Amino acid sequence: MITASAITKETIVHFFMDLQDRICQALEAADGTGRFREDAWERPGGGGGRSRVLSEGEVIEKGGVGFSAVQGEATAATLKTLNLTEPADFFATGVSIVLHPRNPMVPIIHMNVRYFEMSTATSVVGQSWFGGGIDLTPHYVVDEDARWFHQTLKTVCDRHNPTYYDQFKPWADNYFYIPHRQETRGIGGIFFDYLKPTDDAHKAALFAFVQDVGNVFAPIYTHFMAQNRGLSFTEREKNWQLLRRGRYVEFNLVWDRGTKFGLETNGRTESILMSMPPQANWIYDYQPEPGSPEQQTLNRLKKDIDWVNR
Amino acid sequence: MITASAITKETIVHFFMDLQDRICQALEAADGTGRFREDAWERPGGGGGRSRVLSEGEVIEKGGVGFSAVQGEATAATLKTLNLTEPADFFATGVSIVLHPRNPMVPIIHMNVRYFEMSTATSVVGQSWFGGGIDLTPHYVVDEDARWFHQTLKTVCDRHNPTYYDQFKPWADNYFYIPHRQETRGIGGIFFDYLKPTDDAHKAALFAFVQDVGNVFAPIYTHFMAQNRGLSFTEREKNWQLLRRGRYVEFNLVWDRGTKFGLETNGRTESILMSMPPQANWIYDYQPEPGSPEQQTLNRLKKDIDWVNR
Repeated sequence: MITASAITKETIVHFFMDLQDRICQALEAADGTGRFREDAWERPGGGGGRSRVLSEGEVIEKGGVGFSAVQGEATAATLKTLNLTEPADFFATGVSIVLHPRNPMVPIIHMNVRYFEMSTATSVVGQSWFGGGIDLTPHYVVDEDARWFHQTLKTVCDRHNPTYYDQFKPWADNYFYIPHRQETRGIGGIFFDYLKPTDDAHKAALFAFVQDVGNVFAPIYTHFMAQNRGLSFTEREKNWQLLRRGRYVEFNLVWDRGTKFGLETNGRTESILMSMPPQANWIYDYQPEPGSPEQQTLNRLKKDIDWVNR
Repeated sequence: MITASAITKETIVHFFMDLQDRICQALEAADGTGRFREDAWERPGGGGGRSRVLSEGEVIEKGGVGFSAVQGEATAATLKTLNLTEPADFFATGVSIVLHPRNPMVPIIHMNVRYFEMSTATSVVGQSWFGGGIDLTPHYVVDEDARWFHQTLKTVCDRHNPTYYDQFKPWADNYFYIPHRQETRGIGGIFFDYLKPTDDAHKAALFAFVQDVGNVFAPIYTHFMAQNRGLSFTEREKNWQLLRRGRYVEFNLVWDRGTKFGLETNGRTESILMSMPPQANWIYDYQPEPGSPEQQTLNRLKKDIDWVNR
């Protein structure tokens, strides 16, 4: 019998750094002229990261691809959440991406893969888990593109566990929801958290899944970049894009747990807010015309749409 | 001895509705071409409001002047905050304003005056209090204007209580603060809450103060409209205005208690988010040039500046 050797923090960090490199290269190649600028930063409490931002590309108007690996003493709030009664150290690493394209016919995309570990003096193994997801926010929802996107994610999920997509697709619907608008942020995708390994082999399997999610990001987005970058649009579509970006801002600043947690716990603000669009607009009580493409998109910003079988 | 008769809810509501009318008239007159559009709305749980929005005026690019008077059963969270152990009904009324001017040399302004009342089956008098404030967010801080603004508010405060300004000015500095940016939103002003009447005469005195705060809003802002509407600006000042509006969005969506409370408790979203600017921009890690007017403004977005005696 072959026993899987333990996946270490270092292995995971190495993969995430390499993933960031490969995604940035793929996006630069697909964009044509845009180049990422890197800011390396250190966290006063321990660890740091590499924030990479591309501004004013040919396809990507503003996008961020961040890597971080931070550690330190867990806060009282974290201990309480995890039902821990003794002091603990945390370690967290991940890659986070948000890309805002110039052309309103190209969707906004978000991806995150992360690994978290807690260790206490008395627990040798410690608690650890993986999380992540990819979700798509088209300014105009195109059913065929939505189907392809979800099918691509389902294929990745199915390779690892036939129940993953059915679990993680509704999780994304519920997570990327804007209660005060009664809208989903976009067409969802997959979202997962607290995937806790039970042994070394299970940890290797979970890590393999997270690697596949990270690896499918670039092929998915460069597909949409190539397919839609040349689509024509008018001021009407541009205005709608700016309003939808306003909703993106509302979700991220009001509801996104990661953003809120970062801002409330003295994270590096510029890295957390890399997700902000270059420009967002608000019009009081804007209502698209009935039957318009904008209204058709709103009709699709709902939970529980079975995109794969639609 | 003359005993003040009790100020009723109806008296306060009547004043707030009239205040909304007078402020909208004064702003329309000062703007020239802009006109407020009104949406009357009802709250499913009880009460309602009148939201008024002016878009694309000559001076005001987007502004909202809202009145509301709502009532209902207090939520468990409210009861807990107030240390009440039995069910209670709440009543809340107020006027809220945010105005975003077109010209970056004209400041953004915010005003709120409000009255809150709790009644339970066993407490006949009930708890009640006033709150409110006015704060100014210049895109470019001009010391002389800041001094005039604070002096005008201090004069209003001093007419009612010589300690008010010294209490309410730091309260505004602390309230209108953006922790994740380590900046104040603007140059502050006054902010007050939980002004609880101890008897009828005291209630009349507090109401008189709140009336004066409401009444000084239009003279203050129409002064800045008239003074600064014709000042010239270039793309540089416009770009800075859009970035500062981004900060305004960050404060309102991440930190403003009123906005958060409204969005999390099913308030009327469009009325709550009347405060959003027509357009806001984000540039990753934007740093103004040392010594520039933009950097000089950042240097003044600090707590505890004694504007009156500066």
